[in-house]
Amino acid sequence: MNNFSIYLPTKIKFGKGTINKLSKLVEGNYKKVLIHYGGGSIKKSGLYDEVVDELKKAGAQIYELGGVKPNPRLSLVREGIELVKKEGIDLILAVGGGSAIDSSKAIALGAVADVDVWDFYLGKERPKRALPVGVVLTYPATGSEASMGSVITNEEEGLKLSVNDDMIRPTFAIMDPTYTLTLPKDLTFAGISDILSHILERYFTNTPNVDLTDHLCEATMKSVIKNARILNENLDDYNARAEIMLAGTIAHNGILGLGREEDWASHNIGHQLSALYGTTHGVTLSIIFPAWMKYVYLDNLDRFNQFAINVFGISDAGSSKEIVALEGIKAYEEFLKEVGLPTSFEEANLPSDRLEEMAQKAVIKGKLGGLKKLDVEDIIKIYELAL
Amino acid sequence: MNNFSIYLPTKIKFGKGTINKLSKLVEGNYKKVLIHYGGGSIKKSGLYDEVVDELKKAGAQIYELGGVKPNPRLSLVREGIELVKKEGIDLILAVGGGSAIDSSKAIALGAVADVDVWDFYLGKERPKRALPVGVVLTYPATGSEASMGSVITNEEEGLKLSVNDDMIRPTFAIMDPTYTLTLPKDLTFAGISDILSHILERYFTNTPNVDLTDHLCEATMKSVIKNARILNENLDDYNARAEIMLAGTIAHNGILGLGREEDWASHNIGHQLSALYGTTHGVTLSIIFPAWMKYVYLDNLDRFNQFAINVFGISDAGSSKEIVALEGIKAYEEFLKEVGLPTSFEEANLPSDRLEEMAQKAVIKGKLGGLKKLDVEDIIKIYELAL
Repeated sequence: MNNFSIYLPTKIKFGKGTINKLSKLVEGNYKKVLIHYGGGSIKKSGLYDEVVDELKKAGAQIYELGGVKPNPRLSLVREGIELVKKEGIDLILAVGGGSAIDSSKAIALGAVADVDVWDFYLGKERPKRALPVGVVLTYPATGSEASMGSVITNEEEGLKLSVNDDMIRPTFAIMDPTYTLTLPKDLTFAGISDILSHILERYFTNTPNVDLTDHLCEATMKSVIKNARILNENLDDYNARAEIMLAGTIAHNGILGLGREEDWASHNIGHQLSALYGTTHGVTLSIIFPAWMKYVYLDNLDRFNQFAINVFGISDAGSSKEIVALEGIKAYEEFLKEVGLPTSFEEANLPSDRLEEMAQKAVIKGKLGGLKKLDVEDIIKIYELAL
Repeated sequence: MNNFSIYLPTKIKFGKGTINKLSKLVEGNYKKVLIHYGGGSIKKSGLYDEVVDELKKAGAQIYELGGVKPNPRLSLVREGIELVKKEGIDLILAVGGGSAIDSSKAIALGAVADVDVWDFYLGKERPKRALPVGVVLTYPATGSEASMGSVITNEEEGLKLSVNDDMIRPTFAIMDPTYTLTLPKDLTFAGISDILSHILERYFTNTPNVDLTDHLCEATMKSVIKNARILNENLDDYNARAEIMLAGTIAHNGILGLGREEDWASHNIGHQLSALYGTTHGVTLSIIFPAWMKYVYLDNLDRFNQFAINVFGISDAGSSKEIVALEGIKAYEEFLKEVGLPTSFEEANLPSDRLEEMAQKAVIKGKLGGLKKLDVEDIIKIYELAL
């Protein structure tokens, strides 16, 4: 086990009706609140009105900035930063999923920085401070509600980059699984692909002696797969929705990676599909992860063997480690197909003519990966395995 | 899954040499630090000097109060409160295990309260604020380094009672597994009994639909049992020590109980043995937990069946649920014996003539338990099963 630091300051209020905790979280702490959200769904569902009522109860002055898109854009972040600076806003309240949260985190960074906010994403500058971010979560996927990460797309440059810093962990998150009952099938499972990928990025490591976190990763993956299958039969199952929502937070708040070198190649390889083609984040991961697995499994056969046995219950009786490992990869790919997720460029109707360009962009901060270090050539081969 | 709140603000620095993070954690944040500890072992080992060096580097004024005993006493807490008030101390730094931490938490509560500190433990008053507590952990067991609990013994009244409040979660914890390499066998496994008990108190619930936390509990128990067996062969194994230390925190920081009604009868039944006879906390649990299991298993046979299968790998082929459940209980008891822990009054040389008195004291705050509500008669029967 490697040395590690962890700090999880997000106050989580989880369950039916917990929106009624919002006023108490805000009252006396924040005076001017920016509601930052995506499209009109939170207005249609009535959630927007509930949020406004709670903020009024807390005596807060309310500002709003909608229009966050999936793969949130730098241009809107800049607009938010201007607004926050001009009005002296002291809490950014993301109402939505990972896009609204990541955009809020970027605004929270940029509004109190002396440098341009994109410099943090380029890795040119380290954040020194940030405004607090609150969350009302409507879509479990990115884990951003309690994570240290924010991913933003610079649409002019076709770049999708991330910042990771404890400073941008949300100060609170309200998580009511009932908000997720109306999510359509494709978004539900794209979110689940994202959740599983956050675990896989931590699980596939060369760090030895990480027994406890290995088993915690396996436990979470098994529970996500089981509850995904329940939702595949019935999207209205509250209990399965709740398990998935909680798993989304556990998958990415840092606990499952304690003391482990993490990988994150697949995320970065997938980001390029979003940046160029606007592909849903979770879909990029259902396309890239099986290909990544096929490309790297011989670099840590024991771990891929353990994955097959402990997550998918594949028997190792009479089989070689390699055969068991390949069966595990196949089981994961089949699970993704079973819930309707694309596992190739072809299934997602993506063109295959810009692989090198994407691979070049993927390594803009350096080589990718922990389990295996990947350069441009490796990444092109992974894209090719995913065609 | 039930609704829940969780807040885990403890900054954890884990691994070899992380004591060198202490000065940075203190500098600029605290001016007057009370080092609160037990006997001379931290002086002999050199840890005390390292702590003092770090605090000096941070420019802090240093006070000290040693003499914390296992099952920490109210009388020393009162002494600490006086000292902290008189000197205007602003950080209580526990250097040791759960006793030093729980005593520090009590001082942190009492030093800024308008009421007597024992009223919090009696449940007469709710804490309104507390001084910050820092931790340098030397003994993994109680999970107090990141938990919301503090257990104090009022030696005059023979009462051992707890407070649970987010306010007393430590602000930081330095956790270096190398400090635990010199722990003798009996203390090592008493700690492990405590860690497993924290998981069992959460695992044995009647709350339905808690799939993810079920599997997280099972994963943690399996890892603790596996690494305990490694330590039973070789107490010097750093990796196993590290797994146990991390598991001790995970077992009791609240994550494994998210959305579950918890039990806690066995802890309270065991506390009476410590209060009367000074029995080591983890030993009270190795005596009481198997007896509690035997008394209540028919009240949730499915759960005891799941415990047997998922934690101990007991096969359910051709066996009744009851037989499988009983085999699980037996496997747990045998594990405790295997690592040298007493599982009865007799093995711990405890007298059996004050069972009713202990049972009466156990229910001083009301009936015990979540899975099954226990009154005085029930508790006497559990003591009898443990004789």
